[in-house]
Amino acid sequence: MKMHLDCPGCFVRQAIRTGRLLRCPDLVMWELVKGCGTVLSQLEHEFPPPQNAVLLYDMISLRIGNADPFYQLKKDSTRQALTLYPELKEKIKASNDSLDAALRFAACGNVIDYGVSSSFDLMKEIEEAFKTKFFHYEYEEFIAKLHQADWVLYIGDNCGESVFDKLLIEELGKPVKYAVRSGPIINDVTEEDAIDAGIDQVAEIVSTGCRAPGIVFDWCSDEFKTLYNSAPLIISKGQGNFETLSDEKKEIFFIFKIKCKVVAKFLNSPLNSMFFGRTDTVILEHN
Amino acid sequence: MKMHLDCPGCFVRQAIRTGRLLRCPDLVMWELVKGCGTVLSQLEHEFPPPQNAVLLYDMISLRIGNADPFYQLKKDSTRQALTLYPELKEKIKASNDSLDAALRFAACGNVIDYGVSSSFDLMKEIEEAFKTKFFHYEYEEFIAKLHQADWVLYIGDNCGESVFDKLLIEELGKPVKYAVRSGPIINDVTEEDAIDAGIDQVAEIVSTGCRAPGIVFDWCSDEFKTLYNSAPLIISKGQGNFETLSDEKKEIFFIFKIKCKVVAKFLNSPLNSMFFGRTDTVILEHN
Repeated sequence: MKMHLDCPGCFVRQAIRTGRLLRCPDLVMWELVKGCGTVLSQLEHEFPPPQNAVLLYDMISLRIGNADPFYQLKKDSTRQALTLYPELKEKIKASNDSLDAALRFAACGNVIDYGVSSSFDLMKEIEEAFKTKFFHYEYEEFIAKLHQADWVLYIGDNCGESVFDKLLIEELGKPVKYAVRSGPIINDVTEEDAIDAGIDQVAEIVSTGCRAPGIVFDWCSDEFKTLYNSAPLIISKGQGNFETLSDEKKEIFFIFKIKCKVVAKFLNSPLNSMFFGRTDTVILEHN
Repeated sequence: MKMHLDCPGCFVRQAIRTGRLLRCPDLVMWELVKGCGTVLSQLEHEFPPPQNAVLLYDMISLRIGNADPFYQLKKDSTRQALTLYPELKEKIKASNDSLDAALRFAACGNVIDYGVSSSFDLMKEIEEAFKTKFFHYEYEEFIAKLHQADWVLYIGDNCGESVFDKLLIEELGKPVKYAVRSGPIINDVTEEDAIDAGIDQVAEIVSTGCRAPGIVFDWCSDEFKTLYNSAPLIISKGQGNFETLSDEKKEIFFIFKIKCKVVAKFLNSPLNSMFFGRTDTVILEHN
């Protein structure tokens, strides 16, 4: 999907939010605003938002003098999610349908806020996340495709969330290649972050060859494109990957929370609902 | 009050909203976004928002090739508000306290949406607006000051609203000078617009000497500044005038709806509530 006219204002808010998160002094905050000016002047409105977001987050890094401003937050998210792993693993084992449970946990991983302090709070958040309604849940179709596939390409999203991805990968029962960003951007999962989450124990970690917080084929490596094209089954996590892959002809099972009005409108779905499945049927049904 | 970090994102939304209102084609809309980029790069964060807004609306005019894009909307707003004038005049005459009634109508003028179609709808809107809670209503103090004053400086705000200002001016019982912007900006009232509203029948129309949608003394004429400094009583309409005059030592009675979170926070007041009175006591009380 292309940029929507609501995206530029959201870019400005993202820069401000990032500056606040990093407790930047006021003068730096206004430098970020001026930097947003440069970004808005250079936007390509035919690009999907995550492709333009690279401009935005490069600007932020430059203005605050930190190439990986979310480094500590990413480490903390992974560490906190790992404290939950044993309990969630037990819950999956104890459930009637472990794959269904793991899928729902993986979706929760896209929802919870790793900024909270204790694993008790996080468990409460997961219980809340579990109540979030799925706008779409294509479970039977997924199982059918999974049975046929001899391996799975799993496109990762954020840190913290990747620990939940590990739980799902363990239930897939197929070899998995786990795709990560080629370098740090926002709190997206890189190779180092995936290893922190223990993904290397259950999957082969591969790089998209690109830093965008989504899959921008023009910027991806040939190796990744070959993998993508040959993958018998693709799972894509998070809204950023969806925004860049929504126009793809290839069949993709997306798992994400619908976090913004632009995507909600695109899918004709309720804001803040959860999505699991392919989008082509949904888009045809609803638009 | 100075720019808040929420203002730049709001500037972008204002540009988009204006473009949509004028039914600009998509390519022009994205030109407006790029233009916002230039504006954000040039913002002076020590300025009050309406001072920076001149940059924004000049950019919009330039990119859409129209020096007064709100011209028709302004004419329509005044025309529609004039259809209500006789009925409102009757209501004021019939009320126990005509000044109180006129003040409340003048506040409503800052609230109603002149985009609606019939005078029936507008009357319904006024009835709704009348229900809006005043966060602050300094009536007794105002009457005391009014009695002492031999003339009143009344700083106008928007078209449509100025017809409601006329109703209030008629109840003040004092000579009034009605200040307007020196040229078109957004839907703010200019000399031509004030004459359309019949203000010239009840007050002397004076220009601030500046086009900003607020009072920016650095840009106002010496004539206006002399008037302002010598005025025994000042009424200021609308949020834009408040944003530029909030730090003034001179006593000003403001009438406006609190339309944005930044102003609500500044006044420690509920969003969408109404304000009538001086702000210095409020700011001291609440902050």
